Amino acid sequence: MESSRLMGSVERFLITYRLFGNEEEVFAKAKDICIEQTIEFPEEYIPHEFIKEHIVGRIKSIEASNDHSFLAIISYPVDAAAQELTQLLNVIFGNISIKPGIRVEHIELPAKLLNQFKGPRFGVEGLRKLLGVEKRPLLFTALKPMGLTSKELAKLAYQFALGGIDIIKDDHGLSNQTFSPFEERVELCAEAVHKANKETGNHAIYVANITASAGEVRKRAEFAKMAGAEGVLISPGLTGWDMMREIAEDEAIALPVICHPAFLGSFVMGEGGISHHALFGQMVRLAGADATIYPNFGGRFSFSRAECEGIVGATHYPMGHLKPILPCPAGGMSLANIPEAYQFYGKDVAFLIGGGLFKKGPNLIDNSRYFSELVESLTQE
Amino acid sequence: MESSRLMGSVERFLITYRLFGNEEEVFAKAKDICIEQTIEFPEEYIPHEFIKEHIVGRIKSIEASNDHSFLAIISYPVDAAAQELTQLLNVIFGNISIKPGIRVEHIELPAKLLNQFKGPRFGVEGLRKLLGVEKRPLLFTALKPMGLTSKELAKLAYQFALGGIDIIKDDHGLSNQTFSPFEERVELCAEAVHKANKETGNHAIYVANITASAGEVRKRAEFAKMAGAEGVLISPGLTGWDMMREIAEDEAIALPVICHPAFLGSFVMGEGGISHHALFGQMVRLAGADATIYPNFGGRFSFSRAECEGIVGATHYPMGHLKPILPCPAGGMSLANIPEAYQFYGKDVAFLIGGGLFKKGPNLIDNSRYFSELVESLTQE
Repeated sequence: MESSRLMGSVERFLITYRLFGNEEEVFAKAKDICIEQTIEFPEEYIPHEFIKEHIVGRIKSIEASNDHSFLAIISYPVDAAAQELTQLLNVIFGNISIKPGIRVEHIELPAKLLNQFKGPRFGVEGLRKLLGVEKRPLLFTALKPMGLTSKELAKLAYQFALGGIDIIKDDHGLSNQTFSPFEERVELCAEAVHKANKETGNHAIYVANITASAGEVRKRAEFAKMAGAEGVLISPGLTGWDMMREIAEDEAIALPVICHPAFLGSFVMGEGGISHHALFGQMVRLAGADATIYPNFGGRFSFSRAECEGIVGATHYPMGHLKPILPCPAGGMSLANIPEAYQFYGKDVAFLIGGGLFKKGPNLIDNSRYFSELVESLTQE
Repeated sequence: MESSRLMGSVERFLITYRLFGNEEEVFAKAKDICIEQTIEFPEEYIPHEFIKEHIVGRIKSIEASNDHSFLAIISYPVDAAAQELTQLLNVIFGNISIKPGIRVEHIELPAKLLNQFKGPRFGVEGLRKLLGVEKRPLLFTALKPMGLTSKELAKLAYQFALGGIDIIKDDHGLSNQTFSPFEERVELCAEAVHKANKETGNHAIYVANITASAGEVRKRAEFAKMAGAEGVLISPGLTGWDMMREIAEDEAIALPVICHPAFLGSFVMGEGGISHHALFGQMVRLAGADATIYPNFGGRFSFSRAECEGIVGATHYPMGHLKPILPCPAGGMSLANIPEAYQFYGKDVAFLIGGGLFKKGPNLIDNSRYFSELVESLTQE
């Protein structure tokens, strides 16, 4: 019987979970995860040895981590993930997302599984090459507020690009509202940035938000490309992770993809969920984005320095052929905290300052230049 | 200037948030939400009165709820949601998902917004009609464990249908694995259930899991329909919510859609996130599913009776033209707790017993008949 059961590979991948409770509870939890995430079936009724041996998750190790939690490494068969990002995520955290006290800390995939993903097309190096910026941190801002007309947004884009900003993206809430419909906005903003580039000799890029209905995302990506946008913004918490992967891997689109964290926060709140490292770093890379936006420590959100370190670590943690990606700390970044942020992040980073860029003075071009010169001066110190 | 700003409607929708903290903190949080979820921009620099007045969220009320939390109702312009489920969810909880102590409790949409969604095609009544079951609770089970061949799964499906189960779905982890590839499995399982139906005269349905890569979901739905599956299972936590809506609203597919909670648990853990009522009830209905699976209280997951009550309430809470949908308590449901569950849920429910159905005795047909007779007897008391 077993010999006729098709299996592509006996290789396994490893997930590190943080489990809360005492030793006995944690051991029971780990055993439960092995079942829940694979066969979801009473162990005593498993019909074949093959299933017990190859399909069910396996505890590789459990180690005490701190006073109230343990780290358990559990392996799953590569075949359980069915060569799909959706099913891989399902095996990692599908049902157990509904059980308390379980956190995905780290994802470790063998080449066999990593090779099923193309990964980031540009990565840090590709983005630097596209933007013509060799060493310094990249300057990143957003077009807002919602309610401006497309023309007004394009004017902002023009000013930012003239002032030396490298990446100018739609605010993640700009979709296809009546005040600034998608196609009109994207055409005008792309044009505005191209015009500024001609004047400055720089290569700033306009990044269009293509987070939209399932059937719309690809159409918007295609339109954005045609209209001269040189990157797309996607919130995988809203579109699903695989939609981002599909756009990133699409040869006909072939634009940088920037990941926005909207609707993903619940995964990193509280004990359970997914670590900052795995969610905003590893999963974003697996899904092919070239840059990952997340709230910086000390801003108006609640991430700690250690959590941001976890994300940065994941942007270049060895994951086979997957290129390192760019961390984009945001969420209340201001000109005032750039020096501290530079000390923390070093050069391979994009500082995303949104509203804060309006605060320095009445002239946006001047404010952008100030930002640019500040970063330039820090880099040369 | 303002008069030239296009706006489709000045209507607004209402979101009730539970905010944790003291009165002062909660008021500040509510004000922050109004900004963060719309313009995400320093209030003092808002360039037009129009934006301040129409776009920014508005606090409608704040009321103490218990010792450590308040309920705040905030209104947003219908136009901010851009006629897209993705953007509607973004306005409701996009960025603030990353801030602690904020929970979406309830969603209240005006007809103008509800009319942008078709909603469930079948709903409770449509499912009853399709299955030919007028009054009693529906009997629901899953094909598992992963690792069985398609032939073995089809044999289970046949036995369940012979035994009187109404809805027989793929386990949510069955995707397109080598052991039971999607097309082969769906053909064999659909055929098995049709064969059993001919023998019993009942109308059991086979529900195929079509959770898959973004570009695959629709293809799988089309194949499932062609092969004779009479329903599809989708995990919107994996595919994105709008993918489920798109399949549910598609006239060419027109199959019942059943929503699975995989990967959604983090939204209902801890203080923040989204209430069980809004997530597993209201959002599932908005996204067009006809039935919502969730872990029952007292099972191997952690939902309380009150949380399950919240979900059931949302399955039939007035939401314009959106049909009531079927609650499907699962997650460790067993034959032993059916009487208690019946007392709690009444007749408009589908009891999803998976592994538990294998435990009664060695013969699955007998076990299914026992389940069926048990439910029949309860209904007639």
